[in-house]
Amino acid sequence: MSSQALVESVPNFSEGRRSDVVNRIVEAIAGVPNVRVVDVHMDASHNRAVVTCLGPPDAVAEGVFRGAAVAAQLIDMNAHQGVHPRIGATDVIPFVPLRGVTMDECVALARQVARRIGEELRIPVYLYGEAARRPERRELAAIRRGGYETLKAKIGVDPSRAPDFGPAQVGSAGATAVGARFFLIAFNAYLNTDDVAKARRIARAVRASSGGLQHVQAIGVLVGGQAQVSMNLTDYRRTPVHRALELVRREAARYGLVVTHTELVGLAPLEALAQAAAWYLQIDNFHVGQVLETHLLDEDP
Amino acid sequence: MSSQALVESVPNFSEGRRSDVVNRIVEAIAGVPNVRVVDVHMDASHNRAVVTCLGPPDAVAEGVFRGAAVAAQLIDMNAHQGVHPRIGATDVIPFVPLRGVTMDECVALARQVARRIGEELRIPVYLYGEAARRPERRELAAIRRGGYETLKAKIGVDPSRAPDFGPAQVGSAGATAVGARFFLIAFNAYLNTDDVAKARRIARAVRASSGGLQHVQAIGVLVGGQAQVSMNLTDYRRTPVHRALELVRREAARYGLVVTHTELVGLAPLEALAQAAAWYLQIDNFHVGQVLETHLLDEDP
Repeated sequence: MSSQALVESVPNFSEGRRSDVVNRIVEAIAGVPNVRVVDVHMDASHNRAVVTCLGPPDAVAEGVFRGAAVAAQLIDMNAHQGVHPRIGATDVIPFVPLRGVTMDECVALARQVARRIGEELRIPVYLYGEAARRPERRELAAIRRGGYETLKAKIGVDPSRAPDFGPAQVGSAGATAVGARFFLIAFNAYLNTDDVAKARRIARAVRASSGGLQHVQAIGVLVGGQAQVSMNLTDYRRTPVHRALELVRREAARYGLVVTHTELVGLAPLEALAQAAAWYLQIDNFHVGQVLETHLLDEDP
Repeated sequence: MSSQALVESVPNFSEGRRSDVVNRIVEAIAGVPNVRVVDVHMDASHNRAVVTCLGPPDAVAEGVFRGAAVAAQLIDMNAHQGVHPRIGATDVIPFVPLRGVTMDECVALARQVARRIGEELRIPVYLYGEAARRPERRELAAIRRGGYETLKAKIGVDPSRAPDFGPAQVGSAGATAVGARFFLIAFNAYLNTDDVAKARRIARAVRASSGGLQHVQAIGVLVGGQAQVSMNLTDYRRTPVHRALELVRREAARYGLVVTHTELVGLAPLEALAQAAAWYLQIDNFHVGQVLETHLLDEDP
């Protein structure tokens, strides 16, 4: 069993308030044999749901395709409001190699699902990350810039907005970004303020694109009346969660603010959590083999 | 495979300087089929080695018995010096239920190994923890009080020192405590001082026996010229590692001291590390299912 190929997909849907809609999407994904939905994170302010699923590559590809089909029926982007950048009912679908799968195989899987969404569901699709065909589309932010509303206005007229698959026009399901990437940790820090401008300043200070920490993407948003620094850590081995959080705390202190709490969206690898525990607990010479469960993993003869 | 019974044993040997001696003991344990030695912690100041092994109950029992037989041949307690309390070459052998094994079964296993060490190796053995036959022997500290030297003088004359198995006299291998207990986390914090009296005061402040935190045992010792608070956390779910460490840090600050680093001896469960990570990172609503690897554990059909 342990050599069975395993991928993760973390489709993001533009619905974080109607749990019946999210449930129907999740059921469609989980209905495919061997696909396991291991986490569902709904956020009412972002008006967004993040579904984490694992399984063999073909099964996961089929699952997220079915989820996208249901989302296209139930979510109307013309009626969608939310603070997170988004372009479609199924906003983004990343494929992540976990075990016994190469990144190239995940790229092929992403393009296969992208083609099906474009051709069968008639939804414009943009390839991103490792699956991108245009270098400027490697970054998801470039594809989502201006959100659904801007894309709707430009898709048929601006050649730089031409989709990789599907029609060059958006309907109520909007558009979808499909890609392949390495494991990412989505981690949000809430501040004791409703001043979103402060969260944006802190985000600019900590993220790589404006001079901060490598492998950190960050934006400032207002969630449930509380300012939040929303981060993606794209290489936790080199820039760990605790370092990103400590810098957020330090920058927040500059404004007399503190972090009230944080949230982990979806999954994190054991190594990332063990790394944080060992850093804060000051454990020298810690190795992941000291985690009891790592010895329960490899006991197959 | 996942329903296979699994126990842990963490025998402690009174040798932390001669690695050839420790290697021979470890080889004897690991020589038993299906026994996995997953951690060996040698400490020169404590002059002590802590071996962590896992496997099916009978295999682990045989492994630690063979380790005790080798230790009896190679370690002379009359020549042993070290700062940690100890009574024998094989000082203590705990059995811990991990999976598919009850505490009662570990108690039976402990008594079976205790009998063999007493009868076959002619070493006095004291049953402790859940395996204790006298209530005053539940605590290991009571059995080890005064160390090897005191035991040697009293064992034949003081009825309260009569062993549960084996002869009422000690040879060069000393005596051994054998017992059963739940999972324990051994965690040591080093201070930026050589003043062991300060470490002892801090240990008294944080441990349960003198008014501190429940489920924490602590002593102050000098290790490599540095004062150390050496702790056993006997119920990490109720009194977690981070709380014990934070109290040590607070008490240390009272004397103008800081913790320079810590060490985890042997293993800790994933839950304990995830708990610490979530606390320091302030992750609300964290659940252990957010650790990627927990989904790789249970994939057997």
